[in-house]
Amino acid sequence: MIYLDNSSTTQPCAETVEKVTELLTKTWGNPSSLHSLGLAAEQEVARARRAVARALGCTPEEIFFTSGGTEADNLALFGAAYARKKRGSHIVTTRIEHPAVLHTAEALEREGFTVTWLSPDGQGRISPAQVREAIRPDTILVSMMAVNNEVGSLLPVAEAARAIAAKKAPALLHVDAVQAFGKIALRPLRDHIDLMTVSAHKIHGPKGVGALFVKKGVRLAPRVFGGGQERGLRPGTESAPLIAGFGAAVEALPGLKQEEERIRGLNQRLRARLAGIPGVSVHSGEDALPYILSLSACPVRAETMLHFLAARDIFVSTGSACAKGKASHVLAAMGLPREEIASSLRVSFSRWNTEEDVDAFAAALQEGLNSLCSS
Amino acid sequence: MIYLDNSSTTQPCAETVEKVTELLTKTWGNPSSLHSLGLAAEQEVARARRAVARALGCTPEEIFFTSGGTEADNLALFGAAYARKKRGSHIVTTRIEHPAVLHTAEALEREGFTVTWLSPDGQGRISPAQVREAIRPDTILVSMMAVNNEVGSLLPVAEAARAIAAKKAPALLHVDAVQAFGKIALRPLRDHIDLMTVSAHKIHGPKGVGALFVKKGVRLAPRVFGGGQERGLRPGTESAPLIAGFGAAVEALPGLKQEEERIRGLNQRLRARLAGIPGVSVHSGEDALPYILSLSACPVRAETMLHFLAARDIFVSTGSACAKGKASHVLAAMGLPREEIASSLRVSFSRWNTEEDVDAFAAALQEGLNSLCSS
Repeated sequence: MIYLDNSSTTQPCAETVEKVTELLTKTWGNPSSLHSLGLAAEQEVARARRAVARALGCTPEEIFFTSGGTEADNLALFGAAYARKKRGSHIVTTRIEHPAVLHTAEALEREGFTVTWLSPDGQGRISPAQVREAIRPDTILVSMMAVNNEVGSLLPVAEAARAIAAKKAPALLHVDAVQAFGKIALRPLRDHIDLMTVSAHKIHGPKGVGALFVKKGVRLAPRVFGGGQERGLRPGTESAPLIAGFGAAVEALPGLKQEEERIRGLNQRLRARLAGIPGVSVHSGEDALPYILSLSACPVRAETMLHFLAARDIFVSTGSACAKGKASHVLAAMGLPREEIASSLRVSFSRWNTEEDVDAFAAALQEGLNSLCSS
Repeated sequence: MIYLDNSSTTQPCAETVEKVTELLTKTWGNPSSLHSLGLAAEQEVARARRAVARALGCTPEEIFFTSGGTEADNLALFGAAYARKKRGSHIVTTRIEHPAVLHTAEALEREGFTVTWLSPDGQGRISPAQVREAIRPDTILVSMMAVNNEVGSLLPVAEAARAIAAKKAPALLHVDAVQAFGKIALRPLRDHIDLMTVSAHKIHGPKGVGALFVKKGVRLAPRVFGGGQERGLRPGTESAPLIAGFGAAVEALPGLKQEEERIRGLNQRLRARLAGIPGVSVHSGEDALPYILSLSACPVRAETMLHFLAARDIFVSTGSACAKGKASHVLAAMGLPREEIASSLRVSFSRWNTEEDVDAFAAALQEGLNSLCSS
């Protein structure tokens, strides 16, 4: 199997599988229980919290576990907007956010907040100047992903923080770092980021757990009410197995810089292979995160090519998994022609991919174009 | 180990552990992915949905997976209140609900909804007459648990449905069935219940997954926005491993009637043993669900006794795990004297408990009273 759909989800690593199993079979107490069984589970949760905090260079008290990136994004946006609504009603975000931010910002818009939507250039980039112009003295929230999930473009989050400070806006800065976490070094405190979303299942952890970094002192309106877990910000019995599995995946992360270089090699190799195939165009910029490469293989419809490849045990996606076949809002915002959007595929690497995977994909794509176009 | 804290959480059954592991190691695709890896995961999610639906006598389309009971309760209450706010603003619930309902109803109260809070009798019971009196023509939501999580009392949910119909109120009826599911046969459609919360980890499934039954045709305002999973009502990448593990736990449930009789035997045995111990009083009524028995062992503080028992590998809880040592709001609402609340313990059975467990607990409690009172 050649799995090149790692931005949709990743195969859990051995460390994660082992830890989840351990929590299901041995340390299965309720972390909120006062007795030793509960305490043992709570210690596993605490260890995972330290691991995530270490990866973000923050304190464990700044990490709040959620059921995944979507819930963390929702908590960040609603939580910040409601907590700050007395200070303004203006929100800045982009047209290329994940649906968890996009649709939440739209929901806030329906509730009366004003949203400025930043549009990307042809390679999915947002410029620092756009961000500076958008932020106003009554901006209460800026939400911007660190890395776009469909094309890999890097967004100017540190510049957003500087613009907020320069405008003296009462804005919290939220960064959806689901695609960046475990791939580039994230330092929310250094970059003056208030809220950051991360997820386990994009880094070989389990599906169903993520976390929101909330900078010390930042108050959010809770979105869920209940038994007081996660210090009241996200109650509900902790999924100790998934949280511990998340921690194990974080602890197993390789050196990021080194790994990025290796992936950059795979990306360059793929670009070179694709350059030789007529009808193929690449949408991701050379400056994008190398883990993600968006391309179109015209005139074959993306879903047709996806199934052609899957039949050969090669797995990629059309746009993102979450869009489930709908036309990509990201590529549309980038201004791509409709036929290129309809033929677009996303290749996304993990640390387990090799040069052989790249070559096999490129060969199969060529074969698919030959076979599907002649028919 | 003698584990009598099954209303806090249960040990995952072998079927659950096996299924979760299978989804982590083999069927680890993203259920939303269009390729065969995704489809295989989606089929596991669909199988689990059918299992939960079968257990509730409803259709799979009426089951929406969440991260647990707390999230399902929040979705039910906010979702119903917001969807119906043009038709009224009155909500009925009880003072003995789980914090996930209690604090959510309080949040709705702060937002301008009017809540009628029903108080229990001395054994944690709410009468049908109380419910009938509380429901008004402008009642839009009634939320009532099927079984109280601290004392096991059964609440009159079917009567609530009849009262809503009799008053022609535009109310949705939500039942938090977390403690009832897998213990008594629940038939939301027969009982005219619109919304029902269930959870996996109380029935030997994994922590971190639950479901909300939403009767066909009932519209809820979504609480989370994102990629459209769970038909847009609860987006976010599905935790396929936990959902499948939940399904496995449901499929492994024994015959409920038969099992309840066996547990009733354990409950009677425990009551008989406790009757012989001076200072011990039982708060659960004889008509309560036999899986839960609340008692006080005066004058020893509950936490002291809990640790005494845990040191002997016997695990119970003080009130509920979610309260994490706070004084029980349920026992307080029942009018118990403060010293009895401070000494209250909850014994909660699962299908794996035996008569030996009961005898060992009673003996250790007696020993604890002797040893802790003389000191």
